[in-house]
Amino acid sequence: MQGIEATAVVRYTREDGLAEALRGADALFVYDFLSTAVPGAWHGADRLRWLHIASAGVDPVLFPELRASEVVLTNSRGVFDQSIAEYVLGVLLAFAKDFARSSQLQSEKRWLHRETERISGKRALVVGTGPIGRAIAALLRAAGLDVAGVGRRARADDPDFGTVHASDELTRHLPDADFVVLVAPLTEQTRGMFDARAFNAMRPSARLVNVGRGELVITSDLVEALRTGRIAGAALDVFDTEPLPTDSPLWTMENVLVSPHMSGDFAGWRNALVEVFTDNFQRWRSGRELRNVVDKQLGYVPSSR
Amino acid sequence: MQGIEATAVVRYTREDGLAEALRGADALFVYDFLSTAVPGAWHGADRLRWLHIASAGVDPVLFPELRASEVVLTNSRGVFDQSIAEYVLGVLLAFAKDFARSSQLQSEKRWLHRETERISGKRALVVGTGPIGRAIAALLRAAGLDVAGVGRRARADDPDFGTVHASDELTRHLPDADFVVLVAPLTEQTRGMFDARAFNAMRPSARLVNVGRGELVITSDLVEALRTGRIAGAALDVFDTEPLPTDSPLWTMENVLVSPHMSGDFAGWRNALVEVFTDNFQRWRSGRELRNVVDKQLGYVPSSR
Repeated sequence: MQGIEATAVVRYTREDGLAEALRGADALFVYDFLSTAVPGAWHGADRLRWLHIASAGVDPVLFPELRASEVVLTNSRGVFDQSIAEYVLGVLLAFAKDFARSSQLQSEKRWLHRETERISGKRALVVGTGPIGRAIAALLRAAGLDVAGVGRRARADDPDFGTVHASDELTRHLPDADFVVLVAPLTEQTRGMFDARAFNAMRPSARLVNVGRGELVITSDLVEALRTGRIAGAALDVFDTEPLPTDSPLWTMENVLVSPHMSGDFAGWRNALVEVFTDNFQRWRSGRELRNVVDKQLGYVPSSR
Repeated sequence: MQGIEATAVVRYTREDGLAEALRGADALFVYDFLSTAVPGAWHGADRLRWLHIASAGVDPVLFPELRASEVVLTNSRGVFDQSIAEYVLGVLLAFAKDFARSSQLQSEKRWLHRETERISGKRALVVGTGPIGRAIAALLRAAGLDVAGVGRRARADDPDFGTVHASDELTRHLPDADFVVLVAPLTEQTRGMFDARAFNAMRPSARLVNVGRGELVITSDLVEALRTGRIAGAALDVFDTEPLPTDSPLWTMENVLVSPHMSGDFAGWRNALVEVFTDNFQRWRSGRELRNVVDKQLGYVPSSR
């Protein structure tokens, strides 16, 4: 942050000092991207013109007053793409090659041969066609999977996905997928889109991967679908409550891989996030166009494609 | 095997009946590819002309009498390529994304964020340039790794590897690799090629993956290299003694992933192996050229490339 400190007054604050620190501030950099403190401190924002968040998802700061305001909202799109794509490919392979069971058997010193699956030729449906979804699609295709996307509008010749299905036809396409990957932004349209109806449309052999937001899924419906074998497994990096409460049944289900909202966080991610902000700050100071401007009605940066 | 039973007398036998069953037989299909019974039963082979083995590695049947004989040896090359390549990519991602620790933390219901690694741009050295090594190289490249091979002869423009280093210069190239993947056939030249000297040449951050044969590695040297942090980890699907004895320290080392010689064994592999034999049997009966003829001096099928 040294480059910025040289040309601007920078105030660092925790959640409880946010309203006070906002007074007189032109720009706000929300570094703790899971903080829900911004709405409650908004009364302090007396001259704010720009809010930048250190994440791809902007749902924690997309409250009605910000939406209605003139404040420009930018995000950190791009930083996590490759890392999350690799995580997704990793969990697909972990399911196919039965790594969790190998790990368990190893801890028991048991040599137990099993047959495994190939991912080549399997079908993946990626729900969310932003940059992270695109990176996932490209990597899964490179690894031999057949990939389709789900986005707002159906299209047939997307450069990364090939076919994109319209999200209002989701349940028609769920039966085709061996793997369903959730990476959609959390909006009014996507909240709870994976409910009992969606799980009932999936194959009993299918696995769900959620690297988007926990609230895309109705957790109780997911637990039920996993418990009854309606779907075969889930790899979950995000949850509707984080940290995942210790009494959640997801922790102990055999066909579930739990990770603590870390799929994008490669060593060096914190610096990369500050660089994205620094770059945008220099643009802002010199009156150039900001990068990653969020459409506050849509809830994400509209794709140029 | 029905197609074969219709045109030939087929005898099925276990190890203890092999010498007797071999008497008068023209062809032998070694289905249990880890069996060491063939040398001991060889005195029964009074008119054998062809031996086919249900594996890529032929080391269990490459004993001096077979080598010296006129018996043609064929293997099952091709069946396991894609499956093993996927397993290798999977364990690379498991290391990079710290899956084993996530699994452990999940069993303790602990939410502990960590930073992970990206595999994109990492360097992999694949020791062995047969079809399985080629499939591994192609898949790792597709996933964004920088790949080089190690084979008998150095070359600069290999279609799958780009660069192949000569195996007698192995230790010169080991320091460049983040991941070292062993998939060489077990021959007099490759036995024990990964010893203390090789491990000392590797990066402390490097991981070893062995999907070839356990005897490529001096196990005690590997255990020592892992214990002292000379290398960062190992994913081992093959061992010099299989099943891995319960008193092996490898079972309980934190940076080791043990799997029971199953990396290639996708659901359907048994049928695929019988199909390879059946295809070759039909060629043999009609006097056509056999597929996958092993060079008994080299110990593998020479590559056409």
